[in-house]
Amino acid sequence: MRSPVPPRTLAAELAHAEPGSAIRLQGHVHRRRELAKVSFLVIRDRSGLAQVVVRPDEIDETGLPPEETVVDVVGIATANPHAPGGVELTSPVVTLLSEPAATPPVELWRPAITAGLPTLLDNAAVTWRHPAQRAKWEIAAASLQGFRATLDAAGFTEIQTPKLVASATESGANVFPVDYFGRPAFLAQSPQFYKQQLVGVFERVYEVGPVFRAEPHDTVRHLSEYVSLDVEFGFIRDHHDVLAMLRTVLAGMTDAIRAHAADALDLLQVGLPSIPEEIPTIHFAEALRRVGAPEDEPDLAPEHERLLGEWALQEFGSDVLAVEGYPMRKRPFYTHPQPDDTRWSNSFDLIFRGLELVTGGQRLHRYGDYIAALTARGESTAAYEEYLQAFAHGMPPHGGFAIGLERWVGRLLEAPNIREVTLFPRDVHRLTP
Amino acid sequence: MRSPVPPRTLAAELAHAEPGSAIRLQGHVHRRRELAKVSFLVIRDRSGLAQVVVRPDEIDETGLPPEETVVDVVGIATANPHAPGGVELTSPVVTLLSEPAATPPVELWRPAITAGLPTLLDNAAVTWRHPAQRAKWEIAAASLQGFRATLDAAGFTEIQTPKLVASATESGANVFPVDYFGRPAFLAQSPQFYKQQLVGVFERVYEVGPVFRAEPHDTVRHLSEYVSLDVEFGFIRDHHDVLAMLRTVLAGMTDAIRAHAADALDLLQVGLPSIPEEIPTIHFAEALRRVGAPEDEPDLAPEHERLLGEWALQEFGSDVLAVEGYPMRKRPFYTHPQPDDTRWSNSFDLIFRGLELVTGGQRLHRYGDYIAALTARGESTAAYEEYLQAFAHGMPPHGGFAIGLERWVGRLLEAPNIREVTLFPRDVHRLTP
Repeated sequence: MRSPVPPRTLAAELAHAEPGSAIRLQGHVHRRRELAKVSFLVIRDRSGLAQVVVRPDEIDETGLPPEETVVDVVGIATANPHAPGGVELTSPVVTLLSEPAATPPVELWRPAITAGLPTLLDNAAVTWRHPAQRAKWEIAAASLQGFRATLDAAGFTEIQTPKLVASATESGANVFPVDYFGRPAFLAQSPQFYKQQLVGVFERVYEVGPVFRAEPHDTVRHLSEYVSLDVEFGFIRDHHDVLAMLRTVLAGMTDAIRAHAADALDLLQVGLPSIPEEIPTIHFAEALRRVGAPEDEPDLAPEHERLLGEWALQEFGSDVLAVEGYPMRKRPFYTHPQPDDTRWSNSFDLIFRGLELVTGGQRLHRYGDYIAALTARGESTAAYEEYLQAFAHGMPPHGGFAIGLERWVGRLLEAPNIREVTLFPRDVHRLTP
Repeated sequence: MRSPVPPRTLAAELAHAEPGSAIRLQGHVHRRRELAKVSFLVIRDRSGLAQVVVRPDEIDETGLPPEETVVDVVGIATANPHAPGGVELTSPVVTLLSEPAATPPVELWRPAITAGLPTLLDNAAVTWRHPAQRAKWEIAAASLQGFRATLDAAGFTEIQTPKLVASATESGANVFPVDYFGRPAFLAQSPQFYKQQLVGVFERVYEVGPVFRAEPHDTVRHLSEYVSLDVEFGFIRDHHDVLAMLRTVLAGMTDAIRAHAADALDLLQVGLPSIPEEIPTIHFAEALRRVGAPEDEPDLAPEHERLLGEWALQEFGSDVLAVEGYPMRKRPFYTHPQPDDTRWSNSFDLIFRGLELVTGGQRLHRYGDYIAALTARGESTAAYEEYLQAFAHGMPPHGGFAIGLERWVGRLLEAPNIREVTLFPRDVHRLTP
């Protein structure tokens, strides 16, 4: 590598360089254009793109490096109103920092990728380099920042709980078995039990981490490993306090995207969702009537969710709609019933642009209620002994929710397939790259 | 529950309450003291402790709730210089929010826990409620905040990479097998390959997430699942740039503990480590000489690390010491050799108070170097095809490091066993709670 003087300038900073000054850029060759009288190298680094002008006499016998080659370029900052940012580099000395790169599986310099999803996914390490791909994840990363910042400000403590668990207790199905030193273990489907127990310790907790579902269905909205944004907190009145916290969190995530990923939004030409001060809420029974479903339906079908999403947008101008009161028989045993009618629950799903994004609600918090709920379902309480210990020793009324990161970004960007917004997706067919 | 007026006051806010005003506290009964003339309830919430004074005529026939019961208390703020914060609650109306709690497995109100480690771990959901236990994790949570804030400010992008992987390529040993829809899969031992590939996309990346080691040794410093703080970035000169970034990150983590967990530090009576502006560095060969080990030793033994830690403190007043140049034959194939003597590597371990905390260094970045390194080790390049694709398509000089969260907190608090600072530890014997 060359002498470290001048130090590196990022592409986005070139616009502010003094014309005539010596500048060092470092990055990938995003595009190489060789014309008869002059050639161009567009350099891509973490901040953006910069243009380098190369005259024929400045090119040695090896020619200009091919696209994706990593280079160090020292040249002169020169004003040019047609260059990105109004400044380009002239009289360059180009040094290769990698070998000349092999031709990428897709043309990364084109404004839009036209390759199909399998090509994108099979070559993820390279295709994510495309600015429009990369922008998708920048929105995900900004969302994570906003999630944590909002909860840190509200007195929450971040937790990290085990993904290796001894029993598949929460649902029993769709778990991945692990050989744990010769003993059976499972990958956690959610941090549900742990986050509840830790409400007894920290009162307000959140966790960002992978969850695992051995999901046998190959759909555009399911993954077998995804990032779950989990929240749980104590001293609530009922699930409406949980929904109010969810609203604060979603607004914080949206604000963070605006603050940290504005360029990504611009590039993708997407608008941020409208999250009203109070999330419009409809009871499950009323939701069934509204979509014309039989009143004994235990769940909402994807088509129902889509219809409800449209209705919320028309009726309330809202991209989100909470459906509360889901039937107890379809909710997990720790769900708190609706006090005035125990067929229904103090739980909700949040529908975001017609797709279920969040499940949340109030949980049981009295030991006796847990024993009764498990017994009524014919389940052994012994299997839950360690979890139940927290309740025997006093737990506040509490509740929480979980947001799927990839679903959030997918609906935000209106991506047809959740795999498009996942760095390295895992599903029933795909375990690589 | 009672009427919501007055709203809840946190224990730590009681000190600022106007004497004579009605106050509502909500929390666990931390301690119940029944004396002949007057009784006390100490209420614990997420902010701290508050004292409630109960006269005999204010106690009904059920008596005062036992410790750990969750209560709502409305009373009158009353100045008392002997109470925590100088204000206590008198004339209380106590309402139970949980059932009367079962007697905890350890007395949580005592200033120090005297129970042994198995009792602590077997009853984690309850024992973490002890203020001194809880303080340990508050330091961990503040460390995570500092880690991310430092890297966000330095232009890094947070990534989330899969924990389910198709092959046990990085080391081949100590991996957990998973049954993945009938096919073999493994739990990732580190995000190493993914974070490197994503340097080609985002240039600077970090990840906080679980890693899995089927570690058969039952020691005080090993877990089979732990939280890895991973960093990787491009356009470095060599491993000294990586070490400088590590220094910035450790300083940021230390600052965040000071900012967000000062009470926890006070309670545990521990001082923050001294992280010098430049981390003192010793070459591996010199380190062997200094501890009197044979010059062909391929690694440092725990006793060597301890001696080197003592030396760094005496010689440089530093709690950290970098040992650079570890023998290539003991480092993974992606390690960059030391240019002037390829027996050694451009990699380092960071010793923190006598224990290895971080491994890091410069990686190979040229495709040809990877092919040569794998071939020299007799390994098939086909097994690494997807990983190597990133290098074939151009990668900058890069490097990174990984910090074990539990080791960091463990050494910071000088905990004899890493399990003491892990919420729900996993090891060869322990898979629950």
